[in-house]
Amino acid sequence: MLEFDKAPTYQSILEAAQTLEGIVRKTPLLESHALNTEIGARLFLKCETMQHTGSFKFRGAYNTLRRLSSAQQKGGVFAYSSGNHAQGIALSAQMLGIQATILMPEDTPQIKMDNTRGYGAEVITYDRYSESREEIGSKIADENGLTLVKPYDNHFVISGQGTTGIEIAEQLAEQDVTADICVCPAGGGGLIAGTSLALKELSPSTKVYSAEPEYFDDTKVSLECGTRVANTGGKKSICDAIVTPMPGEITFPVNKETLSGGLMVTDDEVRSAIREAFHHFKCVIEPGGAVAFAALLTGKIDISGKTVVAVASGGNIDPDLYREILAG
Amino acid sequence: MLEFDKAPTYQSILEAAQTLEGIVRKTPLLESHALNTEIGARLFLKCETMQHTGSFKFRGAYNTLRRLSSAQQKGGVFAYSSGNHAQGIALSAQMLGIQATILMPEDTPQIKMDNTRGYGAEVITYDRYSESREEIGSKIADENGLTLVKPYDNHFVISGQGTTGIEIAEQLAEQDVTADICVCPAGGGGLIAGTSLALKELSPSTKVYSAEPEYFDDTKVSLECGTRVANTGGKKSICDAIVTPMPGEITFPVNKETLSGGLMVTDDEVRSAIREAFHHFKCVIEPGGAVAFAALLTGKIDISGKTVVAVASGGNIDPDLYREILAG
Repeated sequence: MLEFDKAPTYQSILEAAQTLEGIVRKTPLLESHALNTEIGARLFLKCETMQHTGSFKFRGAYNTLRRLSSAQQKGGVFAYSSGNHAQGIALSAQMLGIQATILMPEDTPQIKMDNTRGYGAEVITYDRYSESREEIGSKIADENGLTLVKPYDNHFVISGQGTTGIEIAEQLAEQDVTADICVCPAGGGGLIAGTSLALKELSPSTKVYSAEPEYFDDTKVSLECGTRVANTGGKKSICDAIVTPMPGEITFPVNKETLSGGLMVTDDEVRSAIREAFHHFKCVIEPGGAVAFAALLTGKIDISGKTVVAVASGGNIDPDLYREILAG
Repeated sequence: MLEFDKAPTYQSILEAAQTLEGIVRKTPLLESHALNTEIGARLFLKCETMQHTGSFKFRGAYNTLRRLSSAQQKGGVFAYSSGNHAQGIALSAQMLGIQATILMPEDTPQIKMDNTRGYGAEVITYDRYSESREEIGSKIADENGLTLVKPYDNHFVISGQGTTGIEIAEQLAEQDVTADICVCPAGGGGLIAGTSLALKELSPSTKVYSAEPEYFDDTKVSLECGTRVANTGGKKSICDAIVTPMPGEITFPVNKETLSGGLMVTDDEVRSAIREAFHHFKCVIEPGGAVAFAALLTGKIDISGKTVVAVASGGNIDPDLYREILAG
């Protein structure tokens, strides 16, 4: 059996990069002359919105499923997910001939649920505000002999997500550019843990910050306290992809070492960032995927004259919400 | 003085590629597993929507302006454009320190007019349904000693656009894929002339087709007649970027040689294609930029089991129209 609970390292990210070679899409790192002039900085947008399944989650999912034993692959996999990990697992499973069962919140954006089913996965729903997906999930997985692939507390998942950081470093190096700052959305913290580990090795002078929505800034608060702190709860956000309860057990120890701090943005700032991405990059970003870009646009950290990267982590947004946001 | 009126060749496209190296963005060639399953073909979308200024036009504009004599550069440049060539010229001029004056239809989408002014160009407007931009344009250029850079009937412009074709061939080759079919939007025919010339050299088995909106299918009709035929006029289309009156003088002789035929789509088919690009590629396409993708999605040509490329030529669409289109 694979050890999902080990700590990810730069080496494990390199191994993921080999596994994912030719499978993941090297997503574009975009820059806008007009926006740069407007903000007085050089801003790059890493468009994981254009990754297979519309988010970075495919990286970690495929990296994990590809490494399962043939017995595990035959037994099927199980995942709980607000939607993007679900799609990543579902497509990876389809590509590798594995049966996938996914537990999703009943208020998951329709597009994410439809896509997950579209990739051949079986979808079960629960109420994210009253039930624990971890408890329901462990029970279903145990009873059916399925291999549970957690969305972030999994060594191979984090390592897969970290290949985003390798790409950012390589794409900047191709342009002879070094980023002063990289901001990355944080839900459970898998993407930013992997990305910051990769950047620490490949671009040690780049400071990495997490970005989170208001009321769900558990990574920011945990970084300030030096220990994992849960959100107080009872609040909602349009950033459905990253409204996780608290930092991960495996991700937080990494992020505590690698991150320079945490940033927090309001839903309105996220809406505005989504409009700016439409305008300047012709790129559709979902709310949870836009928090890093929003944090940079609203000066949550001083970027004047600097070279900065915002990771746009996903683009799976229902058209009705996108229309409402574009209306301003 | 430069000879703008020569016929473009594969060699002139290679020279353009050298000039544009490190300047243009190598735009992504995207593929969606879900969409491929849906249509029973392997479809790649070449996202020139993500080129600087949001359309391919930057390629030809920069290639031309970079080659002007220093006297021509000092004298300033002039262009008429429905909006995308305007932005390409404006940004290129700004980057090269040249003053640009642009004549645009008064019903140009606001986003295109704002962006053009944002790049520092002076904008003059006219009524596209009653006035001739060619006549007004020549007059203004002559009176002010400006160098007129036409949107497609210019050797360097077409050669610059042709670098899109080089990229498509290279990006497909990286994946060991050969396209059976490539469909490309056609207004005056500059993009498709350059792209088809490049593909003819680099991927001779790929058949290239033009795509145009209903009532503005002058390239299709001209190809069928073997000679340049104008649209009958009196009609409108949401595809503002490509509602040109007839094929270009320099572009058509190229397209007559290189193209396998012309395809035509309705505005409703374009709207549907824009929604599909939002859904599958998280990519914002403007109406004129979506005609090739629309032609493939609606079976204007048999793509069953084939590998096909649609060029998405631009993404400059006003948010209100985009919202209306997303509403379905």
